[in-house]
Amino acid sequence: MKIGVVGASGYAGGELLRLLASHPHFEVTAITAHSNAGEQITSVHPQLQSYAGKKFNAFAPNEFASCELIFLALPHGESAKVISQLPATAKIVDLGADYRLESAEAWATYYGGDYAGAWTYGLADVEPFKSLISKSTKVANPGCYATSIALGAAPASEIADMTDVVVVAASGTTGAGRSAKINLIASEVAGSLTSYKFGGVHQHTPEIEQALTKVSGVDAKISFTPILAPMPRGILSTITAKLTKKISTEQAHALYSSYFAKSQFVTVLPLGVMPKTAALTGSNHVQIQVAVDDHTSRLVVSVAIDNLGKGAAAQAIQNANLMCGLDEAAGLNFDGLGV
Amino acid sequence: MKIGVVGASGYAGGELLRLLASHPHFEVTAITAHSNAGEQITSVHPQLQSYAGKKFNAFAPNEFASCELIFLALPHGESAKVISQLPATAKIVDLGADYRLESAEAWATYYGGDYAGAWTYGLADVEPFKSLISKSTKVANPGCYATSIALGAAPASEIADMTDVVVVAASGTTGAGRSAKINLIASEVAGSLTSYKFGGVHQHTPEIEQALTKVSGVDAKISFTPILAPMPRGILSTITAKLTKKISTEQAHALYSSYFAKSQFVTVLPLGVMPKTAALTGSNHVQIQVAVDDHTSRLVVSVAIDNLGKGAAAQAIQNANLMCGLDEAAGLNFDGLGV
Amino acid sequence: MKIGVVGASGYAGGELLRLLASHPHFEVTAITAHSNAGEQITSVHPQLQSYAGKKFNAFAPNEFASCELIFLALPHGESAKVISQLPATAKIVDLGADYRLESAEAWATYYGGDYAGAWTYGLADVEPFKSLISKSTKVANPGCYATSIALGAAPASEIADMTDVVVVAASGTTGAGRSAKINLIASEVAGSLTSYKFGGVHQHTPEIEQALTKVSGVDAKISFTPILAPMPRGILSTITAKLTKKISTEQAHALYSSYFAKSQFVTVLPLGVMPKTAALTGSNHVQIQVAVDDHTSRLVVSVAIDNLGKGAAAQAIQNANLMCGLDEAAGLNFDGLGV
Amino acid sequence: MKIGVVGASGYAGGELLRLLASHPHFEVTAITAHSNAGEQITSVHPQLQSYAGKKFNAFAPNEFASCELIFLALPHGESAKVISQLPATAKIVDLGADYRLESAEAWATYYGGDYAGAWTYGLADVEPFKSLISKSTKVANPGCYATSIALGAAPASEIADMTDVVVVAASGTTGAGRSAKINLIASEVAGSLTSYKFGGVHQHTPEIEQALTKVSGVDAKISFTPILAPMPRGILSTITAKLTKKISTEQAHALYSSYFAKSQFVTVLPLGVMPKTAALTGSNHVQIQVAVDDHTSRLVVSVAIDNLGKGAAAQAIQNANLMCGLDEAAGLNFDGLGV
Repeated sequence: MKIGVVGASGYAGGELLRLLASHPHFEVTAITAHSNAGEQITSVHPQLQSYAGKKFNAFAPNEFASCELIFLALPHGESAKVISQLPATAKIVDLGADYRLESAEAWATYYGGDYAGAWTYGLADVEPFKSLISKSTKVANPGCYATSIALGAAPASEIADMTDVVVVAASGTTGAGRSAKINLIASEVAGSLTSYKFGGVHQHTPEIEQALTKVSGVDAKISFTPILAPMPRGILSTITAKLTKKISTEQAHALYSSYFAKSQFVTVLPLGVMPKTAALTGSNHVQIQVAVDDHTSRLVVSVAIDNLGKGAAAQAIQNANLMCGLDEAAGLNFDGLGV
Repeated sequence: MKIGVVGASGYAGGELLRLLASHPHFEVTAITAHSNAGEQITSVHPQLQSYAGKKFNAFAPNEFASCELIFLALPHGESAKVISQLPATAKIVDLGADYRLESAEAWATYYGGDYAGAWTYGLADVEPFKSLISKSTKVANPGCYATSIALGAAPASEIADMTDVVVVAASGTTGAGRSAKINLIASEVAGSLTSYKFGGVHQHTPEIEQALTKVSGVDAKISFTPILAPMPRGILSTITAKLTKKISTEQAHALYSSYFAKSQFVTVLPLGVMPKTAALTGSNHVQIQVAVDDHTSRLVVSVAIDNLGKGAAAQAIQNANLMCGLDEAAGLNFDGLGV
Repeated sequence: MKIGVVGASGYAGGELLRLLASHPHFEVTAITAHSNAGEQITSVHPQLQSYAGKKFNAFAPNEFASCELIFLALPHGESAKVISQLPATAKIVDLGADYRLESAEAWATYYGGDYAGAWTYGLADVEPFKSLISKSTKVANPGCYATSIALGAAPASEIADMTDVVVVAASGTTGAGRSAKINLIASEVAGSLTSYKFGGVHQHTPEIEQALTKVSGVDAKISFTPILAPMPRGILSTITAKLTKKISTEQAHALYSSYFAKSQFVTVLPLGVMPKTAALTGSNHVQIQVAVDDHTSRLVVSVAIDNLGKGAAAQAIQNANLMCGLDEAAGLNFDGLGV
Repeated sequence: MKIGVVGASGYAGGELLRLLASHPHFEVTAITAHSNAGEQITSVHPQLQSYAGKKFNAFAPNEFASCELIFLALPHGESAKVISQLPATAKIVDLGADYRLESAEAWATYYGGDYAGAWTYGLADVEPFKSLISKSTKVANPGCYATSIALGAAPASEIADMTDVVVVAASGTTGAGRSAKINLIASEVAGSLTSYKFGGVHQHTPEIEQALTKVSGVDAKISFTPILAPMPRGILSTITAKLTKKISTEQAHALYSSYFAKSQFVTVLPLGVMPKTAALTGSNHVQIQVAVDDHTSRLVVSVAIDNLGKGAAAQAIQNANLMCGLDEAAGLNFDGLGV
């Protein structure tokens, strides 16, 4: 099955190429990039030995004419511009934000510019999304923070107040993109933690609320504070909400375990074991732990993912697998690096 | 002025020795350690060239007979055992937890073992503590997390609900001590984030609540989740609470700026600038930023300190300065490393 | 094909399990560990979701009775003890040092204890080793430093003086093993470089010399200084030797490129591009660059590998593939992580 | 004593400001920067609380009219342009490369552009430089690599062949400057080692040779390979040369210890203890260890410094102290951070 990748020179695009190289059913035949067009793929992504000798092309519609499946990994606002030039019959997974939000108003507030509409939201491990994805030809792949937070909070609606969910999440630097900015250089980041998009303004906020509302059936509201952590990959999200019923840690753990029992990529860890981002590196897996803080009557959830794996490229492939009627784990059957 | 350090082989003890070496009024004459007794100080702390040729002694009361000021940097439960063997007239700053809690019940719940009582709490930048410290001969130096969280939440009592304060704080690895444990080795920690003491069970919880209640006059309750971050030093605390009145970010910022106007070590950063742990490394300084999240009606506070500096050794020296009637900044007049 | 792993609780053992889980022809049926026997595999290696629910067994010969292929990942001196208890017909790859050295004297000098003899040396990318491995049932997998240095120096014998090769190589912390030692804790390692086994005493020295002598046919002598680097994985080796003939960088590059032309895992990078350890993370790949320093008439070679991948587990699988008559790349067809 | 800093927005400039703030005799009255002119100093260097409220000025000669001492921390080629506009009587320490090389030819080869001449070379811990500095009004502060390598190799001339010294040195990222380049962003650097300026082309090569030749009286030739390490500060240099006489490690150690016996900033560590960059962070100290590799008849030296401290700002202050007839340690009497 011939596939294409538009915007493959960023970190998500690179991870996509890496994972696609060993996918049993997908063959990457078109690879484009904007500012790096004409460069060797390995000069931008030196790890991609599988693509040695190949170059990024500039985007051109005919590159994708024979592709049945196309991944877009573009800055927000760019996917919508490209979409009309792609084959109408092609299945498309957009790793960008353009088609995630159902509210034009939320788009205007958090992103600005033309609102492109909404596609099926690709949070592939939970319903109703999983079923919808299987029937869709266009899927909006969730944001990295949104993936970890929506998964971690999804089971909580039965036991906690979803209208005041507090989240603090720390991300590795690849979440900020492959961009030469002074605040991203290693000397500034090394050995240091700092928050950003502070005060509830991160653009994933409406996306998380939309996802949670769909999953739970109740209106969700999120206070979200992101942090830049001195590591290249990984997101650790801490989610807390007031309990709406008296429940023990064991009961909360049982609820979460039951909720994700059928998911092969989401693991609720045994009590006492905490999620650790390095355990997920390079993979489509998610680790979750849950506790009840009796002292404050709060549910506390810890969620770890790889922002480039489950938080971007790996979930995009999971979505594509579902859209194509394949095993959702095709090409994703491997564990994280651990160390 | 002759001073002594009991328990100088840990990271807080090492930082204390480093800072004391250039203090204008203190002369370190007694240095003891337990498991490292007999070893060269530089073999444990290779940076302490100022102490080249000196050894850690085993604890012996006569070592401290001529000391007017003594710092204790011992594991919890150990300070109380030592105290009776020290000169009754000596001023003492305990960097451990033994004398921090006024509630024997809280001690029993979070630490266990004999309750030693409470000394003046050494949160040196805010009242009523600062005044009390100046009149005290025995001071309990605050915990590292407690320092950052109590300072960050102290001004909030006028505008936010202190009975449901949510805190997520990430610490560098020196906060876990100089201890050969498998979960602390570099291969396990590098490039990874993980939570610990999960579900509201961290022992600083009652300490923070006690401090905030004293500062604000209202009962405070804290949901606190700690995280181990892949860096040696630094704590970044994110604190959030429901607003009790309608207020803008600018007003909250003005309130915080006013609250800390007289503190020479706590800086409320200009709006738009975020605290960054590396900026505080090695220093007694604190950086704070504040925002109002209108979407959720929450106050959000970000606080950065060096867990070994302001969070331990530097604040201990600030306390000693106050207890000795010196300029509180004596020996602490330097900026953090930044990079 | 049923296979077993003896000593799977260390970092090399964990990486072996991770890679074996997606190998197309190998099925891991026996997994033992010494000090972690009885523990869940995921409690030691939290990334190994593929092994969820399985435990490390204590070593027992009958565990391995039906195994056709066995990997040993034991501390040096332990492999020889175990070997007699394994099926005589089983193919064995020893990731330890026990069977690497052909000189009993070198063994005594650098390791001590009983000398076990020598197996085929598993430097799988170069001759004469590759051919020998294909005919062997017992293979000694090379050390991580030895792999990078022997590969990097192998083509140099035609143009440089192999009797005075100078090597400085820096390794990530997993090279020091999964061991709770104070010098390996994150606080000690973070943001710091330090040398160890200083003065030409590293135990890989005779192994490298033996390998180079076999490859080149001339006696090789190595001055080797290892460094511990603040990262979990990766080795970067810098190798330099006096040129024995006048040659340009382009000619040296052509020589190296030609030497490795048939190797699918060793890449001599285009001139101007430098090896980077992160590009190899998790993979069996090697990156090499070469230059002539005209000023000093020296050849300089830079080599990057993943110490746990090509430097241990991945090369062990490559060896097993060759021993079993499989495609040498079976289960190893993926690129490194890059970031 | 009024002093000025030209080019204070880089990492060396920031470290200079940090150290100068607590210097007992120097008062910084003029601070200029080029691209950051008009910005708050704390917006570039958030750690410099001592300079809160002050801005970088654009360079203007009258700013420095009353300065008796001026530090230049400019990109190479810029110092020479500025020098004629400064007071003729002012003492000047140039942290840049412009006045380091005595050979116009070497300047042309390694830097290019106009050759400015040579000032007294500020390698402040060894003769003949120390004496010359004390009599100079213009001093060229050594490069960071050059400092560590020249100090580490200086005592070797009696026992080793200085015409073929091999050096591999790894530096933290601040050595590459405060510059938004893609290869310096944290995602590219984190957890990775890579070499650069490969093949003997690093511009510190002639500087090191010149310094060693002056110190030893014999012509020195250096093969130097630099490496970028995933840490913000620190340089670890490994230096090796063929022994010219039979000598033991103990004898080499005695020679080195004797050579640096009078230096208060260079410590030859006890045998068995290795230099560690973190031990020097923020300080003017140097740690050295030495060994004889009998197997290869080579001397091996390991040297650690902080590239921004001893390698730039701290040594610049030491030079200024000597030039001003002050205690060379004024304002530099503190230990490194250690962790």
